[in-house]
Amino acid sequence: MNPSLIEAAYGRIAPHLRRTPLLRLKAGEFGIDAALTLKLELMQHAGSFKPRGALNRMLSAEVPTAGVIAASGGNHGVAVAWAARRLGVRAEIYVPAVASAAKIERIRGYGAVANVGGANYAEALAASGARASQTGALVVHAYDQAETIAGQGTVALEIEQDAPALDTLLVACGGGGLVAGIAAWYAGRIKVVAVEPQACPTLHAALRAGGPVDVEVGGIAVDSLGARRVGDLVYPLAARQVAAVVLTSDAAIRDAQKALWRELRVAAEPGGAAALAALLSGAYRYTPGERIGVLVCGGNLDPATLA
Amino acid sequence: MNPSLIEAAYGRIAPHLRRTPLLRLKAGEFGIDAALTLKLELMQHAGSFKPRGALNRMLSAEVPTAGVIAASGGNHGVAVAWAARRLGVRAEIYVPAVASAAKIERIRGYGAVANVGGANYAEALAASGARASQTGALVVHAYDQAETIAGQGTVALEIEQDAPALDTLLVACGGGGLVAGIAAWYAGRIKVVAVEPQACPTLHAALRAGGPVDVEVGGIAVDSLGARRVGDLVYPLAARQVAAVVLTSDAAIRDAQKALWRELRVAAEPGGAAALAALLSGAYRYTPGERIGVLVCGGNLDPATLA
Repeated sequence: MNPSLIEAAYGRIAPHLRRTPLLRLKAGEFGIDAALTLKLELMQHAGSFKPRGALNRMLSAEVPTAGVIAASGGNHGVAVAWAARRLGVRAEIYVPAVASAAKIERIRGYGAVANVGGANYAEALAASGARASQTGALVVHAYDQAETIAGQGTVALEIEQDAPALDTLLVACGGGGLVAGIAAWYAGRIKVVAVEPQACPTLHAALRAGGPVDVEVGGIAVDSLGARRVGDLVYPLAARQVAAVVLTSDAAIRDAQKALWRELRVAAEPGGAAALAALLSGAYRYTPGERIGVLVCGGNLDPATLA
Repeated sequence: MNPSLIEAAYGRIAPHLRRTPLLRLKAGEFGIDAALTLKLELMQHAGSFKPRGALNRMLSAEVPTAGVIAASGGNHGVAVAWAARRLGVRAEIYVPAVASAAKIERIRGYGAVANVGGANYAEALAASGARASQTGALVVHAYDQAETIAGQGTVALEIEQDAPALDTLLVACGGGGLVAGIAAWYAGRIKVVAVEPQACPTLHAALRAGGPVDVEVGGIAVDSLGARRVGDLVYPLAARQVAAVVLTSDAAIRDAQKALWRELRVAAEPGGAAALAALLSGAYRYTPGERIGVLVCGGNLDPATLA
């Protein structure tokens, strides 16, 4: 993907976004002998990076009277509902039965229709596709559309503007739209590292297999990183431009989540803490003095779980 | 207070601080027709701005072998314990019996001695004074020492460097060290507004009386803004250079705390949300287009209370 597509996306969506801040930590924090730069994207509208891709999709097409339609019981569903309200269009979100009541509530709170059904994301996706062919609504995919990937890549554009001298950026990976967009933006100029829970190793498995494959998913971050396979558009981008994939345990994710809260008062959800977990647990091996960026990509959690 | 004292303090303490980020919000967020700039000082070490003053006091004097001593069951006690560990000196903190178990735990977690006793801050302060005269430890006052005030003022130096074009800055006020230091830094160049809970109106009462007076304190933010009177050094600075004092209800503080969480995933304690509460509730009347800064000064809370 040409970075100019990401610049064009940014021009389209920036008026609707928050410019989320960087938190710069000196070497020594968290016991890491390197200066860390945290992009606090959990402070984005709807509590995650997801509005970037959703807005870009919705602003790149004519939205029909039937509005937009998406499948997701998680951050993408919340983001599409938010973006639809923002742009004044209808939204219908297909939510698997396992989704949390809080997220369904939030989707409805933005005025979208939430249709709850299906055992998992794949079933909700199928149901949303069937409905879209009846209504003609614009499909906003969670990760496997070019507009989505370009939209997610805009977070890297902001990071590079604000912190031009990074060596490495750690990014959580579920379906892979985020890390693919970021890798496309940097195009090898810095090392983009994808971090996956051991319990949701979609990109890791795809790279071993030479293409997207279905994997079993579970664990602490399944509600945000629990896509069963990386996207078909995501895969070639990631295979070419993601420098490494690192797997991290659920225990390490939980520790990173607690450390973010204890040390920084940053309330990340498990998926949002996964990238830092790879660093704190040693799963990603840094060199002293390496200039490391960490994307804290979501904060949609029950705050009581931080206590 | 000459701003050069605040610059000197910054040179002393900056190597030990985090540079906390600004979050810039476009006009329209929270329904406010003005662009807001939030200084996320709750992400400072020890969860509040308090390490600034504590560090400046401790780095401006020779710390004796007996170490440092302070009275506070709240953020100041936590900050002194943190700073003492950071500088490798002993710390003894006198904590009133009403202090939360979590804060006492945190003080001890940093390796300080926490002496729990006395019904309130005034009694803990008296006990700490008696102990200091026995041990010779360096007294680190929560708000009424020049070094403390200059240290707290450094947060304004950072805000001005990062956001030079503010018209107004809203700042919570308890004992007043923070707002006095900030007002001294700006010296009338922008409008510094002190915000107090209606239940802890120390500066408001002092300005009416023409000098510090004791007031009854209580309410939702009493653990951080519950000093019974403003400091003797604080008062003349505040009387001369604070543009206005605004009172806000506990309900408005709670609403602001919830709005910070819901919209931004910022987990402020009640005292940390008070400045924003004055704006959102209409207690502070802005003019459309006013460039308003809001200091979010602390995040030491039980996250379950945000749910």
